[in-house]
This record gives sequence, structure tokens and C-alpha cells, in this order.
Amino acid sequence: MAGGLFEFVPQDRRGIGAAMSGIVVQNIERARPEVVDGLGECGVATVHEAQGRTGLLRSFMRPIQAGARIAGSAVTISAPPGDNWMVHVAIEQLKEGDILVLAPTSPCEDGYFGDLLATSAMARGCRGLVIEAGVRDVRDLNRMGFPVWSKSVFAQGTVKATLGSVNVPIVCAGALIHPGDVIVADDDGVCVVARADAASVLEKARAREANEESKRQRLSAGELGLDIYDMRGKLEAMGLKYV
Amino acid sequence: MAGGLFEFVPQDRRGIGAAMSGIVVQNIERARPEVVDGLGECGVATVHEAQGRTGLLRSFMRPIQAGARIAGSAVTISAPPGDNWMVHVAIEQLKEGDILVLAPTSPCEDGYFGDLLATSAMARGCRGLVIEAGVRDVRDLNRMGFPVWSKSVFAQGTVKATLGSVNVPIVCAGALIHPGDVIVADDDGVCVVARADAASVLEKARAREANEESKRQRLSAGELGLDIYDMRGKLEAMGLKYV
Amino acid sequence: MAGGLFEFVPQDRRGIGAAMSGIVVQNIERARPEVVDGLGECGVATVHEAQGRTGLLRSFMRPIQAGARIAGSAVTISAPPGDNWMVHVAIEQLKEGDILVLAPTSPCEDGYFGDLLATSAMARGCRGLVIEAGVRDVRDLNRMGFPVWSKSVFAQGTVKATLGSVNVPIVCAGALIHPGDVIVADDDGVCVVARADAASVLEKARAREANEESKRQRLSAGELGLDIYDMRGKLEAMGLKYV
Amino acid sequence: MAGGLFEFVPQDRRGIGAAMSGIVVQNIERARPEVVDGLGECGVATVHEAQGRTGLLRSFMRPIQAGARIAGSAVTISAPPGDNWMVHVAIEQLKEGDILVLAPTSPCEDGYFGDLLATSAMARGCRGLVIEAGVRDVRDLNRMGFPVWSKSVFAQGTVKATLGSVNVPIVCAGALIHPGDVIVADDDGVCVVARADAASVLEKARAREANEESKRQRLSAGELGLDIYDMRGKLEAMGLKYV
Amino acid sequence: MAGGLFEFVPQDRRGIGAAMSGIVVQNIERARPEVVDGLGECGVATVHEAQGRTGLLRSFMRPIQAGARIAGSAVTISAPPGDNWMVHVAIEQLKEGDILVLAPTSPCEDGYFGDLLATSAMARGCRGLVIEAGVRDVRDLNRMGFPVWSKSVFAQGTVKATLGSVNVPIVCAGALIHPGDVIVADDDGVCVVARADAASVLEKARAREANEESKRQRLSAGELGLDIYDMRGKLEAMGLKYV
Amino acid sequence: MAGGLFEFVPQDRRGIGAAMSGIVVQNIERARPEVVDGLGECGVATVHEAQGRTGLLRSFMRPIQAGARIAGSAVTISAPPGDNWMVHVAIEQLKEGDILVLAPTSPCEDGYFGDLLATSAMARGCRGLVIEAGVRDVRDLNRMGFPVWSKSVFAQGTVKATLGSVNVPIVCAGALIHPGDVIVADDDGVCVVARADAASVLEKARAREANEESKRQRLSAGELGLDIYDMRGKLEAMGLKYV
Repeated sequence: MAGGLFEFVPQDRRGIGAAMSGIVVQNIERARPEVVDGLGECGVATVHEAQGRTGLLRSFMRPIQAGARIAGSAVTISAPPGDNWMVHVAIEQLKEGDILVLAPTSPCEDGYFGDLLATSAMARGCRGLVIEAGVRDVRDLNRMGFPVWSKSVFAQGTVKATLGSVNVPIVCAGALIHPGDVIVADDDGVCVVARADAASVLEKARAREANEESKRQRLSAGELGLDIYDMRGKLEAMGLKYV
Repeated sequence: MAGGLFEFVPQDRRGIGAAMSGIVVQNIERARPEVVDGLGECGVATVHEAQGRTGLLRSFMRPIQAGARIAGSAVTISAPPGDNWMVHVAIEQLKEGDILVLAPTSPCEDGYFGDLLATSAMARGCRGLVIEAGVRDVRDLNRMGFPVWSKSVFAQGTVKATLGSVNVPIVCAGALIHPGDVIVADDDGVCVVARADAASVLEKARAREANEESKRQRLSAGELGLDIYDMRGKLEAMGLKYV
Repeated sequence: MAGGLFEFVPQDRRGIGAAMSGIVVQNIERARPEVVDGLGECGVATVHEAQGRTGLLRSFMRPIQAGARIAGSAVTISAPPGDNWMVHVAIEQLKEGDILVLAPTSPCEDGYFGDLLATSAMARGCRGLVIEAGVRDVRDLNRMGFPVWSKSVFAQGTVKATLGSVNVPIVCAGALIHPGDVIVADDDGVCVVARADAASVLEKARAREANEESKRQRLSAGELGLDIYDMRGKLEAMGLKYV
Repeated sequence: MAGGLFEFVPQDRRGIGAAMSGIVVQNIERARPEVVDGLGECGVATVHEAQGRTGLLRSFMRPIQAGARIAGSAVTISAPPGDNWMVHVAIEQLKEGDILVLAPTSPCEDGYFGDLLATSAMARGCRGLVIEAGVRDVRDLNRMGFPVWSKSVFAQGTVKATLGSVNVPIVCAGALIHPGDVIVADDDGVCVVARADAASVLEKARAREANEESKRQRLSAGELGLDIYDMRGKLEAMGLKYV
Repeated sequence: MAGGLFEFVPQDRRGIGAAMSGIVVQNIERARPEVVDGLGECGVATVHEAQGRTGLLRSFMRPIQAGARIAGSAVTISAPPGDNWMVHVAIEQLKEGDILVLAPTSPCEDGYFGDLLATSAMARGCRGLVIEAGVRDVRDLNRMGFPVWSKSVFAQGTVKATLGSVNVPIVCAGALIHPGDVIVADDDGVCVVARADAASVLEKARAREANEESKRQRLSAGELGLDIYDMRGKLEAMGLKYV
Repeated sequence: MAGGLFEFVPQDRRGIGAAMSGIVVQNIERARPEVVDGLGECGVATVHEAQGRTGLLRSFMRPIQAGARIAGSAVTISAPPGDNWMVHVAIEQLKEGDILVLAPTSPCEDGYFGDLLATSAMARGCRGLVIEAGVRDVRDLNRMGFPVWSKSVFAQGTVKATLGSVNVPIVCAGALIHPGDVIVADDDGVCVVARADAASVLEKARAREANEESKRQRLSAGELGLDIYDMRGKLEAMGLKYV
């Protein structure tokens, strides 16, 4: 009686909890839009480095398109295998700038998502989908410009028979994602940034970019990393021999 | 004595039969061209739904090109691993609008098919290749506009030493395919429609498309699937809680 | 006592030797530029056939771009898992027309290589990278026109803590590669040609291409491989039955 | 003539048909017990050879126990992913000497089957389970002596929400299996023999065993296969060179 | 307010945080021994069901032995790929009844753990190892009776060059694990139970076992699940047809 | 100068050369028996460490038995996919204490080897088989006590149609193996030791074992690796924090 959310929090710590199935968390906090967009400009590799090489989803999460780079706030979905009912529930929770992130409760490559759901999600301001399962209608999704990172492309349909949850913490492709965390995705894959850390990670990512730009110019002019990073002495000390 | 075909039919039921190696079935029935083409217009995801979510090949069958969508009648090939002799035999059996479908008798990723075979197949009116093995010369195949769905791309060549069969039932990437069945393939993968069911499946697929179009417009306007499909009551009855 | 290189050769025969860790071989022999370039024009499938179907890397080595076809001399890198220090060392050894080829000493999919290293490698005349591990910044790499064949795309960074070796023989994706061997890579994958064999393989590859061109024209005109290659008699002798 | 079974047969030819979901075929024909048992004595490798190298399930189907060798008549199950309701339905159809064979309609590794279902199946005379998905309680299954060949071991449970079918043709691990076909399984994997062919395959398998026994004695005495099979001349003719 | 642990907690929420590398949490809470041991008696499948089908590690985590069933409190290790330095650090933190749980920060199959580390861990009262990477010396580990669940067996050694962390939350084989959580492992795989839930999960698991025992006896006597669970009406209502 | 063997050596350097197909090298050198046996006593993990962490085959090479540990001299086979003709040829080349090592020229999981070939090989003094492909009759092989390390178990048979080579250098499961090299195999996998290095590697392996024994006793008594290896200072210097 003390409120669903309050009870929810301590149970939340295991990521996918028994008590959480059948729950929709409606009000989630999000990072500030300019922070989200800034992280999107930096891209996955830079953001991942900037936050200490954490938060990366597994490399089997591949884009269905080439060249897209997005960032947004995670609206998370924990769904049973082969059941996309909760996607409909999640779409209602979307706000401008969000990204849907779905993890099945056991491994599945069925096509949870196609052009109709993308149409609906785009109408709600959704920027893309990250799904540790399959999608279909990829030709249409590409034409619509709706970017997706998925484990598979598979026309196999799903049912609507069992509850899951929306906006609970999930483990997606090996990364723990809380609702409202910032998702960054591009051709390199997908990275999650904890909402609370987003601003500081952005700062570090921009510093990193500035630093890289000067390095890029020196390397482009033919200078060697061995010299720029002053590696020769250390390599010799480690025993590297030139023959 | 009553003819090879008659003897063939009852043995046929196991898909890949001992008695069938070294057999070429010359006269196969095909679905009507307008039905085949209609199914091609609908695409894999819609056709697969329309026939009750059956007939889909495994998701590891990927296109070597983007954006192609074809349909055609299956000319099937059962080939030994690493041996593409039967592809030459099968090409003679091709008619305008056919698709070559090859399954090796044990798993293999060798490159059974390249630009020379594609040149020959195109000259016979072939629309594409579906192969649970490898292909090569993919740059040339793409330039020629010859679409392929395969398990792998691999330059490893094959020999011509052992017989297989042409136009016998095969299991390809987990789906049973009879010669003359309709193959539909696009970016979502590959689906087979039994020849006898092709017309009725097309009808259902078109009905489905019409229905989807109206849904698409409502979803695009911001209406929710929760309301369009009237899901709220059922979700509540199942115990979904909003917190 | 007679010099590092002399001692090196007999130990070399095991490919990745204990004695070789921490060694950089500075002067390697390369094939003549016109031979290397000629092999590049022929492409992987033709070169692989021309040298007796040998030297092909495993099919999991996929390009991050479409349509690129390159050839170059291998500058090899044996690197610890998750450690890209030796890439910096290797870049200094690059000459115009070289290709970096990296094999980790145990399986790894981390992103060893990104846009900064590509900038540096391009400034030294490097034509591309072949890596049995991961790369990142693939959007930038594609924009720069730096071609890569890799096992994975993964933003996971690497450290610079442990020595490896440069220009020692390596086993990369199942193929033995010596420094100075010719690497050919295109949409079909990657093939290695031993430096000493490069000229003779090129000759055979060109003969093969000439022969294929005449076949292509006959096949394009509708003639069958069964007739061009005179297969009918042999197939009948093997027992092929038309029903 | 208007009976369900008659209608069923022609639709049956695609293996997994739309019309078949929600169907239980109650009366299936089985091979004679002495034929089934004879095939079991021969084992998978011999039976597979005896029927012309056909009918083998993919190599990812592994036993959870060591040393078991069984044969039985297939009671087939086509089940939705993550839903084991049809296993209960199938158990009622079991007769003494049967083997349950389950294929999910899309790839799944959930644990469909555990010790309670095994208890029930054993009480009906079931000899084992072949499942292109997961099982659990494997310690108990081993103690009970109930043999299983599966794609995975996974404690993940299943639901009972959607219909499948029992005793319809299925494609399981790449092999087409009709109800009543003979299943042979041992440490080498799983093989299916078409019911109609079972007696003749047994005859060939026994002939093969007899022949092998004489070979085994000669080989054991140190005679070479090169001589027993008279291969030397052919190898020389093919160009084999001893150096 | 200045305490390390307090600061640690909020950062902890992302599981593997940048700020956490190089941290050893020394005092962790554990579940009561009789609860831990009770969960071990129930086994993975029952515990997993009892907590609502959550907490299961991926099915690629396989035992190196047969028949072992253990439970213990997790001492967690987040380690760089190919670097087992933190295992030594973690062993000091072990208490009687603990289980080591290691997740690498990027995918790795190297052999982090062998008989020397097992000797040390056993001397500290450790009950086993769960590792999303490789182990070696498995013959010795089996002789010593030290149970392991791992992703691979691989003799490839590791280095001691980079810091990780001990007793921080980790994602291991897809499951979020906090230090002090209860790990249950047997032939079915590995399951984690949140420390705070352990007692209530044990209660449910025991109720489940009691209930299963009565079912087992009825099923063993030949009664059908269709009747015991009263499924016939529901199946008929869903449209199941017997033909 | 005209000798076959002499010509062979320089071509040999690419491992699997075009010129080598159809060649049987009859007289190979082997390491001394006591060195081979000594390496076998040390086992894979120790030998692999002793030679600087080189020579290990990939982790997918798994034993079909538990507890076997062997060492022997490699008789190598390069075989076409699905063709085991060269195994018969290789058996004639076996001497007491040899191990057959087979690599297919393209990936294959067919069952190249069964109980008849094992009978023949054992009669020639063969100690086991290492094969980057499949085997069958594993129940018989286990009963006979013939140990095998393979990529798969698969009853699928092979043909005898195309030449390969015997006793040429091969790349097997990622490791370069020359005929006469020492193979060590046990539950941890398979390792190759170059013939010329065998004696010195044995010496290092034994030193390693002696050193490990003293460590084992200290660890068993509860002493920590942190203290034995004097790691505390270095960890603190690296920044490890205890909280």
C-alpha cells in the first residue's frame, strides 16, 4: 500500500525479478536532451572509452542499416520468448527522443518487431530499437528510416499471450540497462550510459574527441604513434628486439 | 515398371531418400506465374503470416545484396558436400521464373556457385539462388543483379565427383521444399509456399496487406495498438499493473 | 651468434614460436608491385583457384565495406588478446602497398583498430587491414576509404601492456601467413599467396580469367555447362537417371 | 472419405502445415517391434550407412548420457517456442516402445522436459526423447535411466498457452520425421528410418555388420585397408606420389 | 558521508561501472548457511521455478564434471580479458561456503583458473567456481573434487597486468549477480538468487518439491498430466482436434 | 638436387601448398620416445606454459572420452572435405607411438573415422586421433580405448574420391603442425610441440612441475598467492583499493 514504486525499488536490484513480471513503470527520469544528443554526436566508441570501457552490448548486436548514429533514453521491455505483447504496452510509454530496448527472458530470435510497430513508435517520437532478438520487414524499416540494432533478422512472428514488464531494469546482450539510461548506437554497436553519469561522460567524451583531433593531424602527417605516445623506451624496457 | 515417377512418389516422403540419389526429375508442376509474382509482391513476412507462420527457412540464410525481393518456382538440388556437379544438371531443368534451391547432404560452407553459373542460370530465366552453403564471386553476382540467399560467402571451390539429385524434395535450412513449390525471398529471409497452397496463400496475404494498410494509417496518426487491437481489458485481466 | 635473423629462421617453422614473442623483423622481402597489383585485379576466387585452392582464410573474415578489392604485401602482427600495442610498432614497418595482418594469440573480438590507427597506417601507404579480431570506428573507416576484413566489429577497447611480435609467421583465420606474402581481399574474403609463388600464381590466374571469359560468353548465349564441359557421358556412366 | 485423416494426408506434404496446428493424430502405424529392436542393435552409424547416408539429424543433437543406444517409433510433437503443452498431449499417444520427438516451430533452447514428464512417459513405455530444444533435471533423468538427445540443457521453464500438434510430420534438427518412423539414437547422434523402409534397412544394416566383422579381424591382424580394399592402383592412377 | 562503501552503492547500479575498476569490497553480507544449503538441495531447476523463472545463467555455462550440485555465496570477480590477477585477490576474500563467480569485461575463453588456484580456493573453504570464460587442468580439478561451471575448457594461460575488481556487481552469462547472492549450480546449469530473497525462495522451492513428489507418484502410476492438471477442457476450448 | 624431398621443403613453407596435394612423405623424423612420453606425463596445460604459451589448438577440439592423456608423434593428413581416402594411406605410415592428425581443406564435420579405422590404426601402434572434423562409432572407440579429440561427433559418412596428402605441414584447429611434431592431448585439449624443441620444452615443463608442487603445498596449507607471489605491493602501486 505504500506505493508500487517504493516496493519496486529494492526488488529492482536483481535486474529481472520475479515480482516484476506484469509491471509497467510509467514515470521514468531521463537525461537532459542536450546531453543525450551530445552523446549521440560522439558515437559508441568514444562514449564507451569516455566512461571507462563499460556499458557495451555484445558484438552480435548488429545494425540493419549502415551509417545511422542515434542516442536516446531507454524505454525497456522484458518480454517472454516469442511474445511481443509488451511492445504495444511500451509504445504508450514513449516520449520524444526515446529508444525501445527489448530483452527476452530466454534466448529467442523471433521477429518481435516490424513496420507497423515502427510506424506506431515513430508517431510517438521514438528514435530506434535495440533488441536482443529478431526483427522483420527490414526493407520497410530501412525505407522509413527507423534504425534497428538486433541479434537477428527473422520473419518468424510472435504471439500475444503472456505478460512481461515495461521500464524495469533488464540485461540486454550482456549489459544492464535501467529505464531512462542513455543508449548510444551506431555502426560500431550499442552502448549504455547510466542516466546519472550522462553529463559527466559527455564531458569526458568531448575532451577525448578534442584530444583525438590533434593526434589525428599528427598521425596524418606521418608522425608515428610510437613517438607521439612516447612508447619506444617502454617497449625496449619490456624487451622488444628489432632484428 | 510403371515408370520412375510413380515409384518415386512413395519413396519421396522422407525428403532425402537413399533411392533418390542420382535422380533428375524433369517435369515438375509449377504454380501459375501471376500467383508466383503476387506472392513476390507481398514479401516474406506477409506470406509467412498468411500461411500460418510456416515454411520459413532459418535466419542464417542471408542475402548477399540489399533490397531484392523475388519469387519463383523451386528447382531443387540435393548435392554432396563440396560438390557442385548437380548445379550444372539443374540448370538444364530451369524454366523462366524459376529459383535454384540447393541443400547439401551434410553441412558445408564451400562456394558452390559463382558468376559463371549465374550467367548460365540467368540465360535460362532463373531469378535467383537459395543455398544452404556458400557462394563466391559476390561482387560479380551483385553487378549482374543475380540475387542470392546463402549460409556463407566463401571462395573455397568444389569438385565434380559424386552424384546428387535434382527436383527431389529437400530439407533446406530447416524447411521442407518440394520441386515446384513457390519460393519468396527478400531482406527478411526466405519462405516456401507449397505449390498447391500458393493461390490461397496469396489471397490471404493480400487480405492481410489491405488490413495492415488501414492499421498503418491509424498508427501513423498516433493511435495506439493498445486501443486499435482492444488490448487494455485483457492485459488488466491478466494482471498487468501500472506503477 | 650469427645474428638474430639466422637464429630466427629455424624457429620460424612452428608459425608462432615461444622465442618469437617480442621480436620485430625489420627487413622483409616483398613480391614485385606489378605482381601484387595483378593479383588484386584477379580477385580472391580466381587467385584461390589458380593456386590449387589453397591459402583461403576462414569465411568468418568479413569486409566492413562493400565492393573493395585490394592486394598488398603482408606486414604481420602477433598480438596478445585485447592488447594492440604491437599495431603501433607494426605501422613503423609499413611500406607503400602493404597490408596489416593481425592474429591474436588467443581468440578475441576486441576492437584493436580504429580511425586513428587507420589515419597513421594510410599515411604510411597501407592499403588495408586483415584482422582475426575486432575493429571499431567503422563509419569513419568507411568514410576514409580504408578497407578492413575482420572477425567482428566491436567498440571494446584494448590495452598496451604486453609484447607481441611483428613480421613473424602467423596463423590468421586458419591460414599460415609469412611477412611479405601477398594478401588478396575482396567481397569473397581473403586469400594469401606465398611471396615466392606470386608471379606464377598470377600467370595461372590470368590464364584462368581468359578461359573463363570465353566460357562466360557461351553460357550467356544459353549453351549449357553440361555440353561445354562434356559432362553428359560421365554423368550417365555414374548412373544419373532422368525420370 | 470425408474423414479428417484423409484431408490431412495431402496437406501433410509440406511437413509443417498451417492447417496442422492444433491437430492430434491418434492412430499411427509403427514398424514391427523386432525390426525396431534390430535397428537399435545396429546403431546409428551402421543404420545411416545402410540406408544410403540419409536420415541423420544434425550433429548438435547430443546425448545427456553416455553409452545409451535405443530405437523406437516416433511420436512427433510440433510445439511453439517456450511452450510444452503438447508434450502432455503427446504422452497420452505413447505406446510401449515409442520415442518422443519434438521440434519447436522456431529455434528455442528452453527446457521443455524434466523428470516429471519423464516419469509419465516411462509409465507409458516410452524409451527416450529426441528434442531440438532443451531439457532440464538431467541428473534425475540420468538416475531414472531415461535417455535424451537434445540441442541444449537449460533450466529455463516453458508455458502452456498455445497449441501445437502431435503426430504430424516435422523437421527436427534438419531431418524430416513422420509419426511412426523408426528413430535410432546412440552416442553418435540420431537417425530416422522411414517406417516403410525399416525392414529393408535392417537387412542391409545386418549385412553391413557381417561384412565389417571380417574386415575388423583382418585390420586387427595388421592388414592394411589399402590392400583389403585394393586401393593402391587407383591411388597411383589418380597421381598419388610417395616421396 | 565520506565512506567508500556509501559512495560505492549508488555507482553500483549499472553493474559494471567505470568507477569500480580496481576496487575490492571486503565485507559483504551473505545469506544464512542453512538457507544456502537448502537451496543447494533443491537444485537449479526447482530454485529457478520457485523464484519466478529468473536468475538463470545462459545455457553455454556447462559443468566440467557430472553429478555435482552445490550452493554458496557469490564472491564476484570482474576481470580484464586474459588476465587472472584478480582471482588471487578474490581468494583472500573467500569464506567457508563461498563460490567464486568471474565475468570478463570482454568475451574471453582463456583458462583463468587451474589446479593451483583451486587448491588455494579449497583451502579457504570455497565450494566451486562459475566462470564466463575458460578453465584448465580439468583432470586435476575433477580429481580434487572442485566443481566448475565454465564457458570453455582451454589451456591458454592468462597474464597479471591489469586491475579488475572483486565483490562488485557483475553480469555473468547474462545474469546480474551481486556479491553475497546465492549461487546454485548442478548439471542443469547455474542460477543466482538475490541474497534478500533467498529465504523466501527456499520456502517456495520446498513447497514446490513437496507438490512435485505427489505428482511424481501419480504420473508414475500411469495417470496422465492431461487429467492431473485438468487440461482437457482448456485444450478443447482452444480448438485442439483429435483425428 | 633432384630429390623429391628437397624440392618439397621450400614449397612446404606455406603449410598447405598447391604442389603438395597428392603427396605422401614416407620418412619423417620423430622426437625421441622418452621425450615424447615425458611430455605426455606433463600434460597439455604444463607443456603449453613451458613453451611460452604457443602451440595450442582451438578450444572446440574436445575429447570423446574423459581422463585420457596421451603424447605421440604427428602423422599428418590434409584431406578434402567429406573424403577420408587419405586416412587409409596415412595408416600405412604409422609407427609405434604415433598420433594421426587430420585437417580438412575446408571446414567439415563429417565422420571421417570410426571403429574399423581405429582397429587398423591401433594394430599399427597408433596412440590416438586429433581431427578438426567429425568421428563416429564413439561408443566402440571408447570401448576399444582409442582416444580421440575432434571438432564434432557425426555419423555422416565420407567418400573416397579425391586425393589429399600425408605427412605435409597442416594447420589444424588454428595450429601449424609438421609431421613428426609432438602432440600432447588430454582433458584440457591438444597442444603441439615442434620436434626440434621437444627436449628443451620437456626440461622446462618438468622444472615447472617441480616448482608448482612446492606452491601447491603452500597454497594447500592456506597461504595466499598474494603473499607467495609477493603481489600486494604491485597491486597497491597499480591503485587497487580495498573498501
